[in-house]
Amino acid sequence: MRGKFISFEGIDGCGKTTQIKFLEEYLLKQGYNILVLREPGGTKVGEKVRDILLDKNNFISPVTEMLLYASSRAQLVEEKILPALEKGQIVILDRFVDSSYVYQGYARDLGMEKVKLVNEIATKGLLPDVTIYIDITPEEAMKRRGKREADRLEKESYEFHKKVREGYLKLIKGYSERFVFINGMKDSIKVHQEIIDAVEKYL
Amino acid sequence: MRGKFISFEGIDGCGKTTQIKFLEEYLLKQGYNILVLREPGGTKVGEKVRDILLDKNNFISPVTEMLLYASSRAQLVEEKILPALEKGQIVILDRFVDSSYVYQGYARDLGMEKVKLVNEIATKGLLPDVTIYIDITPEEAMKRRGKREADRLEKESYEFHKKVREGYLKLIKGYSERFVFINGMKDSIKVHQEIIDAVEKYL
Repeated sequence: MRGKFISFEGIDGCGKTTQIKFLEEYLLKQGYNILVLREPGGTKVGEKVRDILLDKNNFISPVTEMLLYASSRAQLVEEKILPALEKGQIVILDRFVDSSYVYQGYARDLGMEKVKLVNEIATKGLLPDVTIYIDITPEEAMKRRGKREADRLEKESYEFHKKVREGYLKLIKGYSERFVFINGMKDSIKVHQEIIDAVEKYL
Repeated sequence: MRGKFISFEGIDGCGKTTQIKFLEEYLLKQGYNILVLREPGGTKVGEKVRDILLDKNNFISPVTEMLLYASSRAQLVEEKILPALEKGQIVILDRFVDSSYVYQGYARDLGMEKVKLVNEIATKGLLPDVTIYIDITPEEAMKRRGKREADRLEKESYEFHKKVREGYLKLIKGYSERFVFINGMKDSIKVHQEIIDAVEKYL
């Protein structure tokens, strides 16, 4: 039986990493075979692309950025996601195509159409079975980040993160059947419970 | 006045590097302002992408490869080529989109249509004013290479290089107004003279 593909989306600081760990532990206890991956990265080549994207000293044009994300994604789909799904595993992804729609297509004004054309080629049309979107305000994101040193993308202004959140909210309206909206402002145990309830329906 | 954009294409070993150097020297003597760039690379980010592409130890899927070339190209167009053309410079490129059509689209069977869609986005539709294609046989290419250690792409089989040459010859038929076919089997001074004759028409 083909496995299931779950992606997590949201602005930086929304709690994706924590919630993915919680979900992974929960599903492992249920006896599921899990593969957790992150974007950009997740493969040898993808991690090198990740280094380029997150390096604060790099000047990267929006089109280049979009293509670099797509290249990392293409490698991940081919090398990891498709083989895992064929083996019946549950694949959990920290970000997938929706991040490109929102970050490059919407927040950087590249346009959704270009991002869609490139990403359909990169992913061979693969989409998650369910996408957990964890919603927090940009104010909360900045508060949570505190004093930890920021990487290139985290250094983006508050205005940018506000636009990214706007982009997610617009995107969800367009693809409501695949997205689950989770209020990430609640405490993390409550958020975890809501995610389990949502995911159980797809398993 | 907008500058001119000249690209060089051909299989590895065809003499592009030497001929670009000869042409650069010739045009400099004529008083032209020249910028020579190579693909993949030519920018800080592009050179990092180049390292990934040429590393013999990397497993890179054909789609990923195509997207990595396109990302390096997008950065080069935005950061170097367009500003130089605006300043009236002559930009000489060692490989451009045609390499992707031939290597990824044709030789690796990705299909021209995908390569075209992605590259039109990467280049914002920019094409060279003239493309010098230097033709040699794959046998000659292997002979010239000799014992020098081969990188990831050069390690490709003889059959692959044969297919690349086939791809170039098909491509030229389709875009005959932009391409200049040069017989690279002649000695390099004669080849240089033919290239000058061809380029002069465009200046």
